[in-house]
Amino acid sequence: MTTVQQPTAPPGVGLDALPLRDDLRGREPYGAPQLDVRVRLNTNENSHDVPEAVAVAVVEALAGEVRHLNRYPDRELTALRAALAGYLGHDLHPAQLWAANGSNEVLQQLLQAFGGPGRTALGFTPSYSMHPIIATGTGSRWVDGYRAGTADGFDLGAASAADQVRAVDPDVVFLCSPNNPTGTALGLDVVEAVLAASDRALVVVDEAYAEFARPGTPSALTLLPGRPRLVVTRTMSKAFAFAGVRLGYLAADPSVCDALRLVRLPYHLSSLTQAAALAALRHADLLLSTVDAVIAQRDRLVAELPALGGGGRVHAVPSDANFVLFGGLADAPATWRALLAHDVLVRDVGLAGHLRVTAGTAEETTAFLTALDAVLSEETA
Amino acid sequence: MTTVQQPTAPPGVGLDALPLRDDLRGREPYGAPQLDVRVRLNTNENSHDVPEAVAVAVVEALAGEVRHLNRYPDRELTALRAALAGYLGHDLHPAQLWAANGSNEVLQQLLQAFGGPGRTALGFTPSYSMHPIIATGTGSRWVDGYRAGTADGFDLGAASAADQVRAVDPDVVFLCSPNNPTGTALGLDVVEAVLAASDRALVVVDEAYAEFARPGTPSALTLLPGRPRLVVTRTMSKAFAFAGVRLGYLAADPSVCDALRLVRLPYHLSSLTQAAALAALRHADLLLSTVDAVIAQRDRLVAELPALGGGGRVHAVPSDANFVLFGGLADAPATWRALLAHDVLVRDVGLAGHLRVTAGTAEETTAFLTALDAVLSEETA
Repeated sequence: MTTVQQPTAPPGVGLDALPLRDDLRGREPYGAPQLDVRVRLNTNENSHDVPEAVAVAVVEALAGEVRHLNRYPDRELTALRAALAGYLGHDLHPAQLWAANGSNEVLQQLLQAFGGPGRTALGFTPSYSMHPIIATGTGSRWVDGYRAGTADGFDLGAASAADQVRAVDPDVVFLCSPNNPTGTALGLDVVEAVLAASDRALVVVDEAYAEFARPGTPSALTLLPGRPRLVVTRTMSKAFAFAGVRLGYLAADPSVCDALRLVRLPYHLSSLTQAAALAALRHADLLLSTVDAVIAQRDRLVAELPALGGGGRVHAVPSDANFVLFGGLADAPATWRALLAHDVLVRDVGLAGHLRVTAGTAEETTAFLTALDAVLSEETA
Repeated sequence: MTTVQQPTAPPGVGLDALPLRDDLRGREPYGAPQLDVRVRLNTNENSHDVPEAVAVAVVEALAGEVRHLNRYPDRELTALRAALAGYLGHDLHPAQLWAANGSNEVLQQLLQAFGGPGRTALGFTPSYSMHPIIATGTGSRWVDGYRAGTADGFDLGAASAADQVRAVDPDVVFLCSPNNPTGTALGLDVVEAVLAASDRALVVVDEAYAEFARPGTPSALTLLPGRPRLVVTRTMSKAFAFAGVRLGYLAADPSVCDALRLVRLPYHLSSLTQAAALAALRHADLLLSTVDAVIAQRDRLVAELPALGGGGRVHAVPSDANFVLFGGLADAPATWRALLAHDVLVRDVGLAGHLRVTAGTAEETTAFLTALDAVLSEETA
């Protein structure tokens, strides 16, 4: 293992010498350690390369743009929004779609329009750790809700979620289904209960991992008709194996998209991003062909983790995503370091006794399971 | 002239029915009208296509990324920052460079780190109209300063700028050189006076059009050593003819870049953007070869505008940019509409009696001058 080489920086004056906002002082930049490790299962990427036929189509689409890059891109993302509507189905119209540089930017725009100074956002911890960071980055007040409803403490029940919404009276509520980092999808009853618990909150359901959900898991997209305060966000970074392109999007009432036009930076989505995403969506079936392979490894992780280290020590949280949260570790940071010594990088999400591992290729899964088995056996010995 | 076709949207509930922030109600989205007109000189694009040799290199660079787009991009933009430092010169180190999706996003990150709720940003109107929009979009208070110092009322004098900074005591000051929409570059004495007038404000010099400046115009880059509160922003959208790629950047003390890491969305700059910009920078000389042609048309506009319509009615503001502001119009919106009827699109920047025209190709300049001459003659007739 070697750390990625950064240029040796000349000494800056230091953050203390700059007129930085007080609420940023002492903070660390968000982001998993970027380490040059053989098996990287820490950021829920899709381990499968872009298939050759799709790559050829994407390069062709990009080549069609390059000579005219002197012109600004289509500010309204007209063709892309139509393609995204076609992909999602559910009778969605292009005017109900919006896209930005990763779902993070979609969420930031939502908070700029519906959150911000003097407003409150509520999420249910543990969940996607960028939700509170983006909320506070836009000046919104963030309230950490909790998850209660089932035995393992990670599921969110409809009654509990609704009670918390009534108590906090937020302007924006974040739900995450399948939830990151725990992996389990929400029942639609939770979404409906949260919507009913407020007559004014915007309810954002982050479905970044929706394509990996177990059969029969419904999407909040089915709830959109007649619910203008409901927003469903998606990404091409996971199932589409397109993390490098940074394409996040949402589906909602057309007026939500109109609202985002008021806060989006003009020409926020480059001609290259739009062209690459369009080409990929034309080959969605082929790109998504890796999803079944990822699901197979995810289910294998859930099945095999409990048998490691002699069996019975580790448990896995049921997953609808391309990762698995596993618990029962005596010292999760120590296990994280021990796995790293085996050239396997997973994610310490800050939950006592737990780590999160991405479902990669069969070879990567084997390497991880073998390494963790060895680590657990060393601990026992 | 035909309006770009948008999909007919299903009726949304309307912004009034959504929990939109109060300060956004009644606002219109920013952006010049996107009209399908023969001669488009309204957004200060570079009218020259990307040269063939550069296009080939960019496509090759993009093709090298496509198969691995399943992985997230380099969050630290390591190679790109080194290339940008090399392009700018002035002994800049890569750690002093930072980039984002257009200089708009660079400015937004600066305001998130150094402005925001409870903080004040000051600019000198008329200037780049996105400065106040991005400031208020990040929750910063915006103060409209004024420009005084020379006869035409568009130049900013050092004493006036410093007085205003002392009076407002802002957290962030925006200077723009060459200034958009007026076109004239600032003297460095103004930058130095503004820095000296506050012991805490971050001073941002927006040099989006720097490469078009008249000979002998110094860049604020020369002032960076020893001035950690000075930030110089640039873009590849104008001189580089790369507006479709959305690549803005800045040079500053390394600690300013460290501060932006606290607010940037992780992986904000796609692998495609980084690869395209890197390839373009390797061919900077060739890409910038259009600059002289643009400057020639800009100087032609400044020289020929006063002779139109019989002469003496129209005057042009001296320009260091790829556009010219011209005044003396009895009714600028009427002239804008009349030019549009001649299939020429320019920009009404909201200054009484003035319009702004981009310096395009020789043919576009001729079309514009011919159309305006006809419009002015019609008015006289």
